[in-house]
Amino acid sequence: MDTPHHIEDGEPVRPGTVYLVGAGPGDPELMTLRGARLLGEAEVVVYDALVHQALLRLAHPEADMVFMGKRAGCVSPSQPEINERLIELARSGRTVVRLKGGDPFVFGRGGEEVLALSHAGIPCVVIPGITAGVAVPASLGIPVTHRGTAGSVAFVTGHPGKGRPDPVDWQKIATAVDTLVIYMGMTRLHDITAALLDGGRSSETPAAVISQGTTGDQRHVIATLGTLVEAVEQGTIPTPALVIVGEVVTVREEFTTLATAALPTGVLG
Amino acid sequence: MDTPHHIEDGEPVRPGTVYLVGAGPGDPELMTLRGARLLGEAEVVVYDALVHQALLRLAHPEADMVFMGKRAGCVSPSQPEINERLIELARSGRTVVRLKGGDPFVFGRGGEEVLALSHAGIPCVVIPGITAGVAVPASLGIPVTHRGTAGSVAFVTGHPGKGRPDPVDWQKIATAVDTLVIYMGMTRLHDITAALLDGGRSSETPAAVISQGTTGDQRHVIATLGTLVEAVEQGTIPTPALVIVGEVVTVREEFTTLATAALPTGVLG
Repeated sequence: MDTPHHIEDGEPVRPGTVYLVGAGPGDPELMTLRGARLLGEAEVVVYDALVHQALLRLAHPEADMVFMGKRAGCVSPSQPEINERLIELARSGRTVVRLKGGDPFVFGRGGEEVLALSHAGIPCVVIPGITAGVAVPASLGIPVTHRGTAGSVAFVTGHPGKGRPDPVDWQKIATAVDTLVIYMGMTRLHDITAALLDGGRSSETPAAVISQGTTGDQRHVIATLGTLVEAVEQGTIPTPALVIVGEVVTVREEFTTLATAALPTGVLG
Repeated sequence: MDTPHHIEDGEPVRPGTVYLVGAGPGDPELMTLRGARLLGEAEVVVYDALVHQALLRLAHPEADMVFMGKRAGCVSPSQPEINERLIELARSGRTVVRLKGGDPFVFGRGGEEVLALSHAGIPCVVIPGITAGVAVPASLGIPVTHRGTAGSVAFVTGHPGKGRPDPVDWQKIATAVDTLVIYMGMTRLHDITAALLDGGRSSETPAAVISQGTTGDQRHVIATLGTLVEAVEQGTIPTPALVIVGEVVTVREEFTTLATAALPTGVLG
């Protein structure tokens, strides 16, 4: 299809490209080389609340920095509002980096942004990021797969979205995969763990909750599927947090020389 | 535990740290900033056949480059041989980067290397990489999750390892998750697709095979679960290849302005 042109002050402006860049799991040094390069080249950077401040310093000094996230006490912009803003910025002819926590296509709503940009005729590119479901367990020494322990891992949303049916059959998935990683599952943790137990997953299955993973503020709780809700209630576990269920949670006990504290972030520090 | 010391020429040598670094899915610019930094600082780099040559140029000019992979016509080193080599190199007191395709903990056998290093008392650190299961579908415009289409994605091994039982219950997983991403599944593709159909997954489910994803040599086949084996036989699809099953495969048809060709690799090109 032809790239549409937008008329502004009588002159046709070719729309800029929108790069949807995954910022990774939290630790700024876990962004990709390409993400960092594009960030330095962009004319506009649209970022949300999950993006580390150190990454914003990689942007070009003259780039417009547009915050589209939730600030304390304020309502966060809706997805249609974000889509409209991206379209409007691209139509001004500028190159836009849309910086998103994690990976754009793993519960990042990147697909919705690509759809909106496609309908508006705006060229776009997706740059993957490391998703929290892999890196956050790893930061605690938990391998989501491990030969002899886990031959499968599922990433599942615990938050279907307002007014939408739950897309996950928790009872069915309970014993279908070895490792379960649940994103945005904290508000429904009681119902989710109950459904997994109903589905036949043993209450003795090791389980963990990790909050603000890969950052200096990382906190975690280790328990079992049967005791996780109680353990979380006793701790102070701010969101965002990831829930991990599976035998891999205990493999970390054998990783005696593996450093698991957040690493210094080198040049980004 | 105390860091053990190794006696060499009468002098105690403190073992170096082994950094297990995920090199990402193929495209060298999809490595992390930390991975690139550590690669430039390492005294020894141990790499395998899946690592892009452009990444090796990021190593320090004086670093020892140790290839531990499969070359045409030769037997690849066994996992115990690789573990032994890492231990031996670290015991010489040098800093070692063990560069692995994808992510060390997603079917990368990183857990086995960490275990061996732990038993030997060698300090180690894992640096996540972008796993093929996320980035390779994305490179073709396939989001592994997509609101309204897929609320879950499972990464599954199609290759249990010689003499090991298959850890995956294919009939059970068939309908338990929305998106299935199968690593190393090509040699058993017929059996795997048959088991998924037996498990109740519709033969009309969209499916794809993507080979050498995110590189300039990427190839793919799009079919359905029922026709995938035949479609693969008609094409020429070299390994390594990834199998994707799920409705998300057709979402890409709506992503009309998304660029999906391999991107130029910037400074690494």
